[in-house]
Amino acid sequence: MSLRERVARNLRRLRQEKSISQEELAHRAQINRNYVGMVEREEYSISVDKLEKLADALGVDPAEFFRSEA
Amino acid sequence: MSLRERVARNLRRLRQEKSISQEELAHRAQINRNYVGMVEREEYSISVDKLEKLADALGVDPAEFFRSEA
Repeated sequence: MSLRERVARNLRRLRQEKSISQEELAHRAQINRNYVGMVEREEYSISVDKLEKLADALGVDPAEFFRSEA
Repeated sequence: MSLRERVARNLRRLRQEKSISQEELAHRAQINRNYVGMVEREEYSISVDKLEKLADALGVDPAEFFRSEA
């Protein structure tokens, strides 16, 4: 699994666990609303600064985005 | 600690554990040699694709870059 795919799956899972839409998450993270969908579709190589904003908005540690599934 | 700082510290630690210079790591990862130093100095918000290349070149899981220190 590519790292983009790993991040995409974790982001979608964490977002859905909080029952937040892509648009709402982007709003809370103060990033462009297109980024969340693009990351979840593996269309965009997101950088550390935006990952930090997303983690803050989700209330999780950024390391959660990089967890490999069992 | 910002996420840039966390990644910077982990990258430097992992690189030094392997006794590889910034230049050698960049060469092995096939990324521009400036990136490694910029990331270690927290001057650059590195993206997932380049982190994957660096992890492969270091022989570590990308999650290692996001470990928070004890």
